[in-house]
Amino acid sequence: MYHRPLERMPGLATAIPAPYADLVERMATADADLRAALRAHGLTWEEYPDLTGAARERGAAAALAYPMQGVLKYHGLSDWDYRIAFLPSVSLCNDAGHTLTLVEFDPDLATDCATINGHVARGRELERVRQSLDAIRAASGATVRARVMSRNVTRGTRMGKGLGSSAAASAALALAAIAALYGDEAAANRRLVSCMARLLAGSGCRSAAGGCSIWFSSPGMPHEDSFAVRLDDAGQLDDVRLITVPLDSRIGLKTEQAHLDAPGSALFRCWMLSRRDEALACIAAARTGDWRTLGQWAELDSMRLHGITMSGSLENKLIGWEPENIVLFRMCNDLRSSGVPVYCSTDTGPTAVFITHRDYEDAVVSAIEGLGLSLEAIRGRVAGPARLVDIAWAGGELGVAD
Amino acid sequence: MYHRPLERMPGLATAIPAPYADLVERMATADADLRAALRAHGLTWEEYPDLTGAARERGAAAALAYPMQGVLKYHGLSDWDYRIAFLPSVSLCNDAGHTLTLVEFDPDLATDCATINGHVARGRELERVRQSLDAIRAASGATVRARVMSRNVTRGTRMGKGLGSSAAASAALALAAIAALYGDEAAANRRLVSCMARLLAGSGCRSAAGGCSIWFSSPGMPHEDSFAVRLDDAGQLDDVRLITVPLDSRIGLKTEQAHLDAPGSALFRCWMLSRRDEALACIAAARTGDWRTLGQWAELDSMRLHGITMSGSLENKLIGWEPENIVLFRMCNDLRSSGVPVYCSTDTGPTAVFITHRDYEDAVVSAIEGLGLSLEAIRGRVAGPARLVDIAWAGGELGVAD
Repeated sequence: MYHRPLERMPGLATAIPAPYADLVERMATADADLRAALRAHGLTWEEYPDLTGAARERGAAAALAYPMQGVLKYHGLSDWDYRIAFLPSVSLCNDAGHTLTLVEFDPDLATDCATINGHVARGRELERVRQSLDAIRAASGATVRARVMSRNVTRGTRMGKGLGSSAAASAALALAAIAALYGDEAAANRRLVSCMARLLAGSGCRSAAGGCSIWFSSPGMPHEDSFAVRLDDAGQLDDVRLITVPLDSRIGLKTEQAHLDAPGSALFRCWMLSRRDEALACIAAARTGDWRTLGQWAELDSMRLHGITMSGSLENKLIGWEPENIVLFRMCNDLRSSGVPVYCSTDTGPTAVFITHRDYEDAVVSAIEGLGLSLEAIRGRVAGPARLVDIAWAGGELGVAD
Repeated sequence: MYHRPLERMPGLATAIPAPYADLVERMATADADLRAALRAHGLTWEEYPDLTGAARERGAAAALAYPMQGVLKYHGLSDWDYRIAFLPSVSLCNDAGHTLTLVEFDPDLATDCATINGHVARGRELERVRQSLDAIRAASGATVRARVMSRNVTRGTRMGKGLGSSAAASAALALAAIAALYGDEAAANRRLVSCMARLLAGSGCRSAAGGCSIWFSSPGMPHEDSFAVRLDDAGQLDDVRLITVPLDSRIGLKTEQAHLDAPGSALFRCWMLSRRDEALACIAAARTGDWRTLGQWAELDSMRLHGITMSGSLENKLIGWEPENIVLFRMCNDLRSSGVPVYCSTDTGPTAVFITHRDYEDAVVSAIEGLGLSLEAIRGRVAGPARLVDIAWAGGELGVAD
C-alpha cells in the first residue's frame, strides 16, 4: 500500500475505497458547500499552475513551517499516494515548534538524499520525502535530484508525540522544493504549495496555509483540488493562546498505523457525515475570531478521534492517549466550571494543546503545573504560514558545512 | 425528565426521540432479524402474562441476582420511563458480586420504603425503586405498598464503578417483588421478570436472564416486547473466566448522566446501525461457546462506548475511564501478542473485566498484579440468572430484625 509510485496525473480523480463509495457524492456536495462559504466570506484561491518545462537545472531554497493542532481533525486516507483524506478538516498552526528545511536540486546527484534531525533518512522516512519531491518534479517533467536537510525544533525540552511536526516538515519541504526548482513566483502560489505540502503528511497542507485553515478533501478528489485555505486573514485570532503539553507515546504510536485503522471503525461514517455542518460553524467562528467555538470543536473532536482510532481493529486497540490525558481533560472541565474559558485538544498522539484567550494563559499554565505531574507547558500563539527563509541562515542553523 | 409517572399501559409504543425517528424502522427490522435468529437456534420465550386482579394482599419474597458486563454495550434511553434502549445489547453475567433483595408487600404501609446497603433510600434512589414497584403493581391494579431491603455484595474489597451492580439490584428487586405479589408461577415467567427488571436499570433485564443474554430493544418498542433471553443454555461458557478489576471513579461518574449524554454524540447513529450484524455474530458465538468472539466484541465495544460517552456534550466531557484503564487495555494487547487469549472490557465506569479461558486465568491475574498498581483481581465465572432464595436466610443476611 505504501509503495505505489505517484504515477497518475493531476486532474484525475484519486482512489475511492469501496466501503465508502456510497458517501462520495454526499462528501462532494459538502465540499462544494464549504467552498461556497469561503467565497461568501471573500476568501479566494489561485489557479493551479502549469509548470511544464519550468524547472531549473539547479536551485536551492530554505523554508520554515509550523506544526498544527486539529480543530476538526482528520484521520484515515482515501488515497495513500496523494494523501487525500476522507473528510475536510480545520486546524490551528502552533508556534510551539517549527521545521526548518533546506532543499538543493543538484544535477550531480544520482539519487535524492535527506538528513533529518542530524540523521541520514532511510526506508519509509526517505520514501516519503522522495514521494513529495517526485510530485513536485512531475509538475514540470524535471528529473534533477535533491539534497534535503531538515530539522524539527521545539520551544520545549522535547517534541512529544502528536504535536504535528510531520505537518510542519511536509510544508517546509514542499515550499523549499518548489522555490528551489521553480522560483519565487511558483512558491507564492499558495494553492500549489498547499497541494504539494499534503503529500508527505496530509496536515501539511494546513501548515502551509497557516493560522486557522480548512483543508478541502473528500474521497476521489483530484490532487490539485485538495488544499488548505487560511480563514483568519485579519488577525482575528491574535489574542488566542496555545499552551502545549508535550507527551511522549509509551507505545511508540505511529500516526500512519492510526490512519490505517481509523476507517475500519464502525463509527467512522458518522464522523464523515457530521463534518459539513461543523466545518461551516468553524469557518464562521474563525472569520469572527470566535475562538471558543473553535476550542469547543477541537476538544469534542479529540474525543471522537480517540474513540474512532481505538475502535478501528478487533485484535489490536490503538490507544493514543496516555494516562496523563485523562487527568488533563478532566482538569480542563474543572477549569471551565470555575470560570476559566479553555479547551483541551489532542490529535493522534497524547500531546495536549490548551486553547484559551491571553487573559487566561497564566491560569491555565498554573493549573497544569499544579497537577504535580512534572508536565511541561509551552506558551504559544497561533502561527503563520510556511515561509521562505534566507538560505545561508538556514544552512547555518542546519549545520551545513560549506 | 426523570419524574414522569409510568402512566402508559403495556402494549402501547414507547417514546421515540425525534433525532432518531428516521432509524426506527431499520432498528425494528433488525430486532425482527434477531428474534428470528434466536428461534432458528431453538430458543423460545413465554407470553407476557395477564395479571389483572392477581395480586396478593400481603406477601414476601427474596431474590439474588448478578451484575453483568456488556459485550455489545448499551447507552442512552429512547424512553426513560420504561427504560427502552436505542439498540439491542448482549452481556455476560458476572459472579464477582451479587445483589440480595427482600421485598414485603404490607397493607399497613402508607408508602413504599427501601433500605439499600444499610441506608434508608431517598430521592432519586427511592424513586427508581418505586418506579419498578409501580409497574409491577400496575400489571394487576394492586395498590399495596412495599418494604424493600437490599444489599450489594462483592467478592472483592470494594465494588468499583461500572461493575453493573445496578443491573443486579434491578433484577433482584423485580424477581422478589413479582414473587411476593403474584407468587411463584408469575415469578417463573422469565419474560415478565426480565421486562420488569429493565425498569430500574435497563441492563437488569439481562441480569434477570443470566449467562450470556441478548436484550431486545429499539426506539418505540412496547414494554412487554423489550426483554432479555439467555443464549448459553447448555453450559457453552462454563470454561470462561471473568477477572474483575474494580476501579472507583475519581469524578463520581453517574451512569444516568452518561445515558443522557451519549445520544448527543454524532457517533451514536453509527453505533446503532452496526448493531444488528454484530448481535447476530454474538448470538452465534454464544451458542457455540466461542468466547473469543464475545471477548473481541466486548473489548471493541468498550472503545466505542467510551468514545461515544466522551463526545456527547460540547462543554462537559464525561470521561468514564481512569488513567489505569489505559494501562490495563495496553496490557491486554500485550498479553494477546504474547499468546494469551484474553480481552479487556469496561462498561460506563472504569471497572475492568478480563474475559479469558480457565487455562489462562492465572496468567492474566499475574499480569494484573505485575503492573505494580495495587489493583485487585477478582477471579470469577459467568453467573446464572436471578433466582429466588429463602426468605429467612435473606433476612438474616440483610440484618432484618424479627
